Amino acid sequence: MAELTHFDAEGRAHMVDVSDKPVTSRIAVASGAVLMSAETLALIAEGRAAKGDVLGVARLAGIMGAKKTSDLIPLCHPLPVTKVSVDLSCDAALPGVRITATVKTTGQTGVEMEALTAVSTAALTVYDMVKAVEKSMVITEIRLDLKDGGKSGRYEAKR
Amino acid sequence: MAELTHFDAEGRAHMVDVSDKPVTSRIAVASGAVLMSAETLALIAEGRAAKGDVLGVARLAGIMGAKKTSDLIPLCHPLPVTKVSVDLSCDAALPGVRITATVKTTGQTGVEMEALTAVSTAALTVYDMVKAVEKSMVITEIRLDLKDGGKSGRYEAKR
Amino acid sequence: MAELTHFDAEGRAHMVDVSDKPVTSRIAVASGAVLMSAETLALIAEGRAAKGDVLGVARLAGIMGAKKTSDLIPLCHPLPVTKVSVDLSCDAALPGVRITATVKTTGQTGVEMEALTAVSTAALTVYDMVKAVEKSMVITEIRLDLKDGGKSGRYEAKR
Amino acid sequence: MAELTHFDAEGRAHMVDVSDKPVTSRIAVASGAVLMSAETLALIAEGRAAKGDVLGVARLAGIMGAKKTSDLIPLCHPLPVTKVSVDLSCDAALPGVRITATVKTTGQTGVEMEALTAVSTAALTVYDMVKAVEKSMVITEIRLDLKDGGKSGRYEAKR
Amino acid sequence: MAELTHFDAEGRAHMVDVSDKPVTSRIAVASGAVLMSAETLALIAEGRAAKGDVLGVARLAGIMGAKKTSDLIPLCHPLPVTKVSVDLSCDAALPGVRITATVKTTGQTGVEMEALTAVSTAALTVYDMVKAVEKSMVITEIRLDLKDGGKSGRYEAKR
Amino acid sequence: MAELTHFDAEGRAHMVDVSDKPVTSRIAVASGAVLMSAETLALIAEGRAAKGDVLGVARLAGIMGAKKTSDLIPLCHPLPVTKVSVDLSCDAALPGVRITATVKTTGQTGVEMEALTAVSTAALTVYDMVKAVEKSMVITEIRLDLKDGGKSGRYEAKR
Repeated sequence: MAELTHFDAEGRAHMVDVSDKPVTSRIAVASGAVLMSAETLALIAEGRAAKGDVLGVARLAGIMGAKKTSDLIPLCHPLPVTKVSVDLSCDAALPGVRITATVKTTGQTGVEMEALTAVSTAALTVYDMVKAVEKSMVITEIRLDLKDGGKSGRYEAKR
Repeated sequence: MAELTHFDAEGRAHMVDVSDKPVTSRIAVASGAVLMSAETLALIAEGRAAKGDVLGVARLAGIMGAKKTSDLIPLCHPLPVTKVSVDLSCDAALPGVRITATVKTTGQTGVEMEALTAVSTAALTVYDMVKAVEKSMVITEIRLDLKDGGKSGRYEAKR
Repeated sequence: MAELTHFDAEGRAHMVDVSDKPVTSRIAVASGAVLMSAETLALIAEGRAAKGDVLGVARLAGIMGAKKTSDLIPLCHPLPVTKVSVDLSCDAALPGVRITATVKTTGQTGVEMEALTAVSTAALTVYDMVKAVEKSMVITEIRLDLKDGGKSGRYEAKR
Repeated sequence: MAELTHFDAEGRAHMVDVSDKPVTSRIAVASGAVLMSAETLALIAEGRAAKGDVLGVARLAGIMGAKKTSDLIPLCHPLPVTKVSVDLSCDAALPGVRITATVKTTGQTGVEMEALTAVSTAALTVYDMVKAVEKSMVITEIRLDLKDGGKSGRYEAKR
Repeated sequence: MAELTHFDAEGRAHMVDVSDKPVTSRIAVASGAVLMSAETLALIAEGRAAKGDVLGVARLAGIMGAKKTSDLIPLCHPLPVTKVSVDLSCDAALPGVRITATVKTTGQTGVEMEALTAVSTAALTVYDMVKAVEKSMVITEIRLDLKDGGKSGRYEAKR
Repeated sequence: MAELTHFDAEGRAHMVDVSDKPVTSRIAVASGAVLMSAETLALIAEGRAAKGDVLGVARLAGIMGAKKTSDLIPLCHPLPVTKVSVDLSCDAALPGVRITATVKTTGQTGVEMEALTAVSTAALTVYDMVKAVEKSMVITEIRLDLKDGGKSGRYEAKR
């Protein structure tokens, strides 16, 4: 049966030993969304041009958040990311802001958590900047879209 | 019309001046969930007793995450929280893990972001600890349930 | 004769005791500049509109840097800042980027170091973002322009 | 024409992808100065022997600052530095304190920002420790003196 | 019977609610020692004058460590310390280095953990700087000597 | 005669240059203890089952502390650890809690400080969680048990 690798044989949490894993190129892509009213979304969309760039601030926060992943997630290995990009776009169909993060490294473990943390941090930042206008926004659908590299190989989310 | 307070008159991001706001008691409650398969949830539920306490680790991560909020969210004011609690429970109806965080402070700004960050960090930690078993988990429905204290008064989410 | 307050009677570094100082409103303003060629400055100025907002990224970095001050400066007291703003502007006369930071708190010590750290961090970020184009940029003239509040009262730099 | 590498084709800030760059030995040297009155400088110089070692504290702060570079500079890659040294000396000709930092790594990106951050942090620390005596000190002439290693090769500042 | 306050009624870890505790002046003093051979101690003692100030570096590390306490200790409340001093002295009778830290704040919780963390960090730093010479050093006898302020009143260790 | 490597020829603290050291597998094991009354120890032992898992929280804190080592210890090189485990057990013979930490990396320097920091942080966390019941606990006997890998080879503590 499947095992929770973050615990040893006696059920004690530990940071998994990756010392013997090879150093390989790794990539992860994660996504999520912040749902809000159409009026709030319009304020963000309009603000991009004139009143303040919510998405630009959230993008930076997401990139910096990716670098703090191993500080936030207790059993996560520290690793030097080699690329982080975070894209945010207004989607009137939600209505809300869609977020996608891509992270790469060359290392012994994957960067799934870095990509997910980038999305989460960007989403929280959108919430923070807009909460004076709408407190009922919802951060949702944060998931891993893709990972590749390492022994466990490629994973792609089904849509 | 509503204004985005995190930008000045010329649309430049800044940390809002709260110097003249009174020091008052403040509380915020936020919640969210991590969706997964029933099999994965069973592994977590069972593990609590014998193989490793996923929810206990995530609870700690959430509490510590709340303390890092102003480091993660660019325009968030630093403030000394006076209470943080994070509750996680297995919900077979989702199926998945429900998370609720309560944060208090005595200060010049609210702790909504601290509560939301606690929930997000706990959710990411659940994902991290279980991802070897299921990568398709989804972090969802992160929202503010309640805030009280400060000039803007009480807010309660409609359900 | 003047004394270096950060050392005790025997010359050992310590964090000065401010326990008995009253809690008062405090403000500090600091400024600085990054000198560069006119061509590089044009790239930044033009980029604001179309290719990437160097000054916007540096502004965020400055605001976040202010919050890290007591972590960076060994004998600096931690204190919760209540306002941070960082302004950057292109000045063809230098040629270069001018930076000004304003920080406020309500506390037992001043925020001079927070304002200076905000300027320094913003300047380093400008350098980082433009260094692929010009490595000979110079960060210069970082100084305290104003402080007010607290026992030592108001200070204004002579110009 | 020269491009700002920290933005993608649509002008959005990102952390540049260095995944495919080779791991090479890299070095960077940066310098700067803190200008002050001759009386203040004398206090620092004298203090070294008897009353408290301003330069020793600033040296430590500079070394520790180098390790925080990727946390301070939003788009800077994290990398494990393999050597940091920071030298400070009293220069009566300024009058003031001269600062030089040397940083090395074996990695995929350079350590220019680490060297510049070390100098900045050391300079801010000198300011902090002496500001009770003279608030009009100026941090100035922070520049990259040398970098070597990596694809872009050697750079030496003209003097 | 005595209760472990860091757990709620159901045994779940939480950060204790101190919202309703009054803001009072608080102090804590902690101490500890690093045991080593007489030869190693002589190297440290001698170095103070000529070859490098182990105790000065460790003192700084201890002061900075006190500021990181709530980041290190999961359920510890963040609070702005108003004074930190760390004293280290060579004691031939151990033989080894004795360390004492004094921390003050004006707040809703005590600073015992800050004082103990300062001592621990200073001790670890002594070990780090001397370990090339002697790996068998032992960090020992870290204890709280005194605390005062707050509802639980004064505590003094028996000797 | 033995030299303190963390100082240069003129006695100035620096981070030792490890650029030319080979990348090898490294391991370190450290241990320590927290002494307390038999009654307090019983409370911890009992709590494991029902009232709150002191040792589980301390284990997490120790693992996360290992990741902060280079941030805490001024001249310590940053390096990405590949494994951290921390074991805590109740020992009625002390009476108290015994702590052992094992850390691995693949890098240019050893992980002795990471193992010692993990033990120290876990010990401080035990103290924090139990101090409401007994303030006279003592953190003691923190030492390096084993290191291996790197030029200086294997070290094992004599018992």
